[in-house]
Amino acid sequence: MTIDLKPSPVRLKAVAGRGQPEPSPALEQLYRGFEEELLVPLWTEIGDLMPLHPKSKAAPHLWRWDRLKALAAQAGQIVPVGRGGERRAIALANPDLGGRPFATPTLWAAIQYLMPGENAPEHRHTQHAFRFVVEGEGVWTVVNGDAVRMSRGDFLPQAGWNWHSHHNAATEPMAWIDGLDIPFSYYTESQFFEVGREQISHAEKGTPERSQSERLWGHPGLRPASATTALPATPLLAYRWSDTDRALADQLALEDEGCVATLSPGHAAVRFTNPTTGGDVLPTLRTEMHRVRAGAQTLVRREVGSSVFQVFDGGGTVTVGERTWQVARGDLFVVPSWQPFAAQASPATQLDLFRFGDAPIFEALHAHRMQIGN
Amino acid sequence: MTIDLKPSPVRLKAVAGRGQPEPSPALEQLYRGFEEELLVPLWTEIGDLMPLHPKSKAAPHLWRWDRLKALAAQAGQIVPVGRGGERRAIALANPDLGGRPFATPTLWAAIQYLMPGENAPEHRHTQHAFRFVVEGEGVWTVVNGDAVRMSRGDFLPQAGWNWHSHHNAATEPMAWIDGLDIPFSYYTESQFFEVGREQISHAEKGTPERSQSERLWGHPGLRPASATTALPATPLLAYRWSDTDRALADQLALEDEGCVATLSPGHAAVRFTNPTTGGDVLPTLRTEMHRVRAGAQTLVRREVGSSVFQVFDGGGTVTVGERTWQVARGDLFVVPSWQPFAAQASPATQLDLFRFGDAPIFEALHAHRMQIGN
Amino acid sequence: MTIDLKPSPVRLKAVAGRGQPEPSPALEQLYRGFEEELLVPLWTEIGDLMPLHPKSKAAPHLWRWDRLKALAAQAGQIVPVGRGGERRAIALANPDLGGRPFATPTLWAAIQYLMPGENAPEHRHTQHAFRFVVEGEGVWTVVNGDAVRMSRGDFLPQAGWNWHSHHNAATEPMAWIDGLDIPFSYYTESQFFEVGREQISHAEKGTPERSQSERLWGHPGLRPASATTALPATPLLAYRWSDTDRALADQLALEDEGCVATLSPGHAAVRFTNPTTGGDVLPTLRTEMHRVRAGAQTLVRREVGSSVFQVFDGGGTVTVGERTWQVARGDLFVVPSWQPFAAQASPATQLDLFRFGDAPIFEALHAHRMQIGN
Amino acid sequence: MTIDLKPSPVRLKAVAGRGQPEPSPALEQLYRGFEEELLVPLWTEIGDLMPLHPKSKAAPHLWRWDRLKALAAQAGQIVPVGRGGERRAIALANPDLGGRPFATPTLWAAIQYLMPGENAPEHRHTQHAFRFVVEGEGVWTVVNGDAVRMSRGDFLPQAGWNWHSHHNAATEPMAWIDGLDIPFSYYTESQFFEVGREQISHAEKGTPERSQSERLWGHPGLRPASATTALPATPLLAYRWSDTDRALADQLALEDEGCVATLSPGHAAVRFTNPTTGGDVLPTLRTEMHRVRAGAQTLVRREVGSSVFQVFDGGGTVTVGERTWQVARGDLFVVPSWQPFAAQASPATQLDLFRFGDAPIFEALHAHRMQIGN
Repeated sequence: MTIDLKPSPVRLKAVAGRGQPEPSPALEQLYRGFEEELLVPLWTEIGDLMPLHPKSKAAPHLWRWDRLKALAAQAGQIVPVGRGGERRAIALANPDLGGRPFATPTLWAAIQYLMPGENAPEHRHTQHAFRFVVEGEGVWTVVNGDAVRMSRGDFLPQAGWNWHSHHNAATEPMAWIDGLDIPFSYYTESQFFEVGREQISHAEKGTPERSQSERLWGHPGLRPASATTALPATPLLAYRWSDTDRALADQLALEDEGCVATLSPGHAAVRFTNPTTGGDVLPTLRTEMHRVRAGAQTLVRREVGSSVFQVFDGGGTVTVGERTWQVARGDLFVVPSWQPFAAQASPATQLDLFRFGDAPIFEALHAHRMQIGN
Repeated sequence: MTIDLKPSPVRLKAVAGRGQPEPSPALEQLYRGFEEELLVPLWTEIGDLMPLHPKSKAAPHLWRWDRLKALAAQAGQIVPVGRGGERRAIALANPDLGGRPFATPTLWAAIQYLMPGENAPEHRHTQHAFRFVVEGEGVWTVVNGDAVRMSRGDFLPQAGWNWHSHHNAATEPMAWIDGLDIPFSYYTESQFFEVGREQISHAEKGTPERSQSERLWGHPGLRPASATTALPATPLLAYRWSDTDRALADQLALEDEGCVATLSPGHAAVRFTNPTTGGDVLPTLRTEMHRVRAGAQTLVRREVGSSVFQVFDGGGTVTVGERTWQVARGDLFVVPSWQPFAAQASPATQLDLFRFGDAPIFEALHAHRMQIGN
Repeated sequence: MTIDLKPSPVRLKAVAGRGQPEPSPALEQLYRGFEEELLVPLWTEIGDLMPLHPKSKAAPHLWRWDRLKALAAQAGQIVPVGRGGERRAIALANPDLGGRPFATPTLWAAIQYLMPGENAPEHRHTQHAFRFVVEGEGVWTVVNGDAVRMSRGDFLPQAGWNWHSHHNAATEPMAWIDGLDIPFSYYTESQFFEVGREQISHAEKGTPERSQSERLWGHPGLRPASATTALPATPLLAYRWSDTDRALADQLALEDEGCVATLSPGHAAVRFTNPTTGGDVLPTLRTEMHRVRAGAQTLVRREVGSSVFQVFDGGGTVTVGERTWQVARGDLFVVPSWQPFAAQASPATQLDLFRFGDAPIFEALHAHRMQIGN
Repeated sequence: MTIDLKPSPVRLKAVAGRGQPEPSPALEQLYRGFEEELLVPLWTEIGDLMPLHPKSKAAPHLWRWDRLKALAAQAGQIVPVGRGGERRAIALANPDLGGRPFATPTLWAAIQYLMPGENAPEHRHTQHAFRFVVEGEGVWTVVNGDAVRMSRGDFLPQAGWNWHSHHNAATEPMAWIDGLDIPFSYYTESQFFEVGREQISHAEKGTPERSQSERLWGHPGLRPASATTALPATPLLAYRWSDTDRALADQLALEDEGCVATLSPGHAAVRFTNPTTGGDVLPTLRTEMHRVRAGAQTLVRREVGSSVFQVFDGGGTVTVGERTWQVARGDLFVVPSWQPFAAQASPATQLDLFRFGDAPIFEALHAHRMQIGN
């Protein structure tokens, strides 16, 4: 038999309003019955649950890079890195998501910080992750024994359930950005975690210019004939800035020559892809680099799902919903679901924006929608 | 410039513990800095965010059908059905999900109730839905002008963004179960809604034995040659009990003849599928009917994602995590993510269980896991 | 070293013409050089190899059922069935394909004939096959031990590499149609074959009303929960006439009610599908049943790839390219690639046409094209 | 009524043998009946049509590059290039395929030759094609207005139905290899062809170092955010030797370091892929570059479908079925379906082999099989 002594968490109040039953003693009695049986009617909740279009709980918000970095450096002095805490990672907490470390309802974005000689211990988890380096160098991420260099502009995807650790082989601290689908896996309760070895081997701490994964998978349009099936996530562990930069420059040059190459005039963009499928690098995360020509602006765009942007270089103005910010290198901001977004580069310099978002979730479920234009 | 006068929602407290930095004035100062900048460190949250395996916030719980129906009937007397409230639907609120009308973190389950002659007005929404009829008849669901009969044992999927209404053409009230992915679309902020016509035409209120969709799509292994592409969701609007029952009986009979047909000895099950793909009926919802032979039991099974079951017929015992219940016709219960589930039919009668769950979400994202056995 | 003493099969003749080099002694010498080295220039062959659109080598042709059946019956008297010859199958040989048993360049169509008590021995092959029964009954096809009844109007797909045999359990001979992709696998050299047991067991020669496969897979929109992956070919071994007939009748009735259900006015059609994918029953073969209302006609249609039709019931006129025939039950005819096809039912009776073709090959390779209308 | 005055092409002869009916007057009469009705029995043909495994009609054969080039140069002197003949292409004619210009039953391989200043006129066709350059440079292939440089080691895929022409901008003649699926589309009768403009514009005859397609698509793991859907064939029009060479060298270096990177010890290989899918560059053609370390050998491999190889660099020994050849730069040879193939590099130099084959056809149709080892 069911015995549940906890007071019911359901609280219902009869109020007048469109679509609401007339308050009455009978209604009150009904609502008490609902509460006892742990029931909630649709009619009191429908406005919140079924809006005409997504109305995000999350707020547009901007975090300044200099403040983040200063706090991370402060943490570097007093917070050790080790098993249990696992990482010296400090996450963006959207102001309207109740103090949780969630940049948006689905996305985690954090600054991670490693002091010279420090190691972040090996573990693995089903959450998909990536690193993006806005400045600095000297840390290697070791993935299943493959040491991957991290330098400015590099994008390092980290597919779920692969062993990984970080070690700072340099004489300076280094900071970078971690992006994950932690909030999504948290709400959907689909996450697994495992701790790895306490020490990785000396050999794994090598500092090669190119990782094994790049040597196997980093050649345009080529794949090893020994590995020809589609994988859910990319096997390529680093997308180097020199390639990304060249691809963006090529798009703008092609536009100058009259070719269709950009998203809209003056707005180049590349998507990081899984070379085994041509699709997104990770099953839940879309990652892109955008470049807006000096003085140009993007189209206004709104889409189902949320994004986090980091300014990689240059400056300009970004607008998210009703908020507008001047932005500079390293600044991070969020675009909640279905909020319009546009960016404008300053007249003097192009604006490079790294972006990650959750669109693959909605595309996989046939729930994606996008509007371009005002 | 960003100006945010709201007090920060972030609250951090330095505490001793594994993986935690030693409490100190410097740490307190760091945490105040985090709060000001809307930052939360990983090390204080990792236990909750990244458990070794899913630890659902939701509780196993059972709702008794007689109580639900009695309250629904009471609502039938005093709560009108119409625009604004849209439906006389009363949802299961999991005791550990804070009073929200969420059976599990992703699933909505409600009893809907319609009095003789009543109409639930036309609308459409991107949330995927279905109806399942544990008893009664007399209501037609009209989908894009196609009137679909509802009778005991029938399963009516309702793919997102199709116009639909209900009308009770009988002289008795009727109750049935609605299942939707409302909580999932709520957390991921991906939902759209539109109201339809105030009145559907008289012609649409016909009461045909078979809907148009069944006449087009309800023939085993056949599809109209005029419609040959894959659709995200099923175009077949009713799966009739006579078919489901026969399929289950066939599996048990085949097992008796020595064929491999059941999930495990004495446990037959069919999955409702989209005839244009062979996959699940709806992009986010898996729906199945299970039959356990009198006296038999299922294997223990745990899986990523959650399910709601309704007892369709017979009786027996079900175990979810550490809870065990005797169940009877109409009873509903939830299986939270990664909680073990097993069922045993009573010695006297087979046990028929309708089940719906969110597994397609995890399969689409390559995040599904399942364990069979103890 | 290559030593090849065979005379070269290449024969080139210099001729004047558009795109041809001027005949000259130098050209003759060049051509002799080509012949010696086993080379052929594009310029002499391009007209044949690269036409503006497919110009089939195959001819439109019709075979009369009464003649086929008479010859098959004659063969029944004098040609035994057994290992080596394997089947008493007599294939259509397109008049323009050089006497080969190829109905079209990719399709095999044969009448198979089994005397009372006879058995066609077990074997398997990678060629995909099906049986279609225009009349008669009494034979069972045993597929991997599952005995499948064959009756008028039934369609029995036979996916490659499954063991199968036939036995006639009746007191009358029985004839039916076999369709296979033999010519396609022959030209592409992709076929495997294996002989099976000399005798199948008595138990396998049962004569059940429904096969195991139908009991597992023959329920509309349902699949066994124990078998949920996509299979390359259908696991359902029989599509019964009662279902096919009802689906066609439903389409015409829906058309009468104003619904979009048919291919064009008066022309209903269903496609046989693989319930695990919603696609064609077999990777290389598309199979359909068409019904043209009495007095109605189909649109003219031409498509890449070829088809074979058999008149299942009724009568009328069919046009293929420049040929037109009056047709009656059992007649078979071929539609070569890109030849226009249309059918007209006689004023007195509807016309039922079974059709199979090779379109899945072209769709899988993104090479399919179709034109509807004159 | 069918009236067919041509003598029947069917010729049947009663012979004794396993699985054959006893020759007799009745049998002769039956066979005459078959001939009249254009019928052929299975039992006389089954050995040829349904062998235990593929027995190719095609022979292993080798063509020497110096002989091909000499004849192509001779053709350069006397055969003009222009509309009608379209290309100065000279195709390999397998000795056992009846003098047809078919290297294998599905594959076309030709040497194409262009004199200084010559243009091969614009056309398009549904056959998929590619160019591979074993030596020389100076020709540009213009695809839909995009001029693509051709240099030693470059691979240029040419997806069906794109406009293309060639122009030699250099002062020397140039030869290269064309590969197409002409025989496959010929047998399956699925080909379309269209002539283009007589003259392409001066602007299109530019000689850029990198084509537009390379600037858009030639960056590892990146794609334009403006083009994010899967395409049936690659949009990247050139795969440069520097990338291919580096990828092969990387695999061998990784092997030296103890990583799994090669197909087998000493045997590196890359597959050219469609960056929008990760699959083969063209729907019907697989293309790869292989490198065998000096003194090493490949495993023996047999597979459904056929291949053509060209020696790109180095030398060694190759074995196809019962043939063995010493090979040198530019030599071409064919591997018929299911014939075993192995290669051995000479002790002094590594062996680079370009390979193309028809495996995507069989993989798309679930008909592919492969055996590795002796």
